[in-house]
Amino acid sequence: MPHINLPEGFPGITGPMMAYPETESHLNSLAEALLRGPSSLTPAERELIATHVSSGNECHFCTQSHAAAARELYGGERRVVDLVLNDVQTAPLTDKMRALLNIAGKVRQDGRLVTGEDVERARGAGADDKAIHDTVLIAAAFCMFNRYVDGLATWAPAEPEAYKETGVRLANQGYLGSIRARESR
Amino acid sequence: MPHINLPEGFPGITGPMMAYPETESHLNSLAEALLRGPSSLTPAERELIATHVSSGNECHFCTQSHAAAARELYGGERRVVDLVLNDVQTAPLTDKMRALLNIAGKVRQDGRLVTGEDVERARGAGADDKAIHDTVLIAAAFCMFNRYVDGLATWAPAEPEAYKETGVRLANQGYLGSIRARESR
Repeated sequence: MPHINLPEGFPGITGPMMAYPETESHLNSLAEALLRGPSSLTPAERELIATHVSSGNECHFCTQSHAAAARELYGGERRVVDLVLNDVQTAPLTDKMRALLNIAGKVRQDGRLVTGEDVERARGAGADDKAIHDTVLIAAAFCMFNRYVDGLATWAPAEPEAYKETGVRLANQGYLGSIRARESR
Repeated sequence: MPHINLPEGFPGITGPMMAYPETESHLNSLAEALLRGPSSLTPAERELIATHVSSGNECHFCTQSHAAAARELYGGERRVVDLVLNDVQTAPLTDKMRALLNIAGKVRQDGRLVTGEDVERARGAGADDKAIHDTVLIAAAFCMFNRYVDGLATWAPAEPEAYKETGVRLANQGYLGSIRARESR
């Protein structure tokens, strides 16, 4: 049971977002800018970073939601998402994404763990300043989203299949548009 | 030296905020809503939660900036800020703030650590749902801000005195208004 009174039937972050619209709008605007706005990283790559960080933090709702979005966005290459979830070390990644997921994994634990060598490796593989910035801020932001979801003990469906529709919606429509309008349809 | 190219002379989060306005606006809007918007917690209490979390994460810039803001907002009661920084267990706190700082400290580590008993203790001391929600989201948000600042290896002044003016500005003006307009004055 959630630690505070939340509307029933809204899993994970959608419950507190419905109940507290004064912060919902900024959280969704940030997600849209970070995951869909202009960047040298594709939306698929950015959703994969969000998935990897949420998985490291063991946040079931965020991991499943963003994995589902990443699968949609990767299209025919979607198996990379499950291979990263299974073992990032052996997953078939570009050198750039391998270096950026390494940075994201360190930011998840403690920002101070990121070294100049980590950043040089990403740069050598083609990451520009914007890609490095976005990787750090996506990883940092999911440390927030994950804690918001789990710190309030929100409810979430267990089975990954329950997240497919969310993934399709996030892939096609992104994070804008009122969550209240969306859920009342 | 920061991991990416940032404007010189802007410490901590102000550097990446200047360089990346597409996320700055949402980050500052979130901070304003969380730390200054309507809540059953005072701005002073909310800045103290932000300070406690930033201190736990050992983020020097965020700890010093928000401690300075909290001191201004606590006014004649300002010594509580340094006593919390020194040792939260022995600091002279209301039962409500002691219970909320306990929740914030757990969210900082992992949202799943917050127990029903932790929340009941806060409730018994007068915290309502909004106070518990805001405590969890402030703690979660500072896990983001701290990682953004440290994951990019931003520069920050060492001495606490350097943050006094920032504290006065944050206490009096909050987080809105373009950071670019503010800094170019």
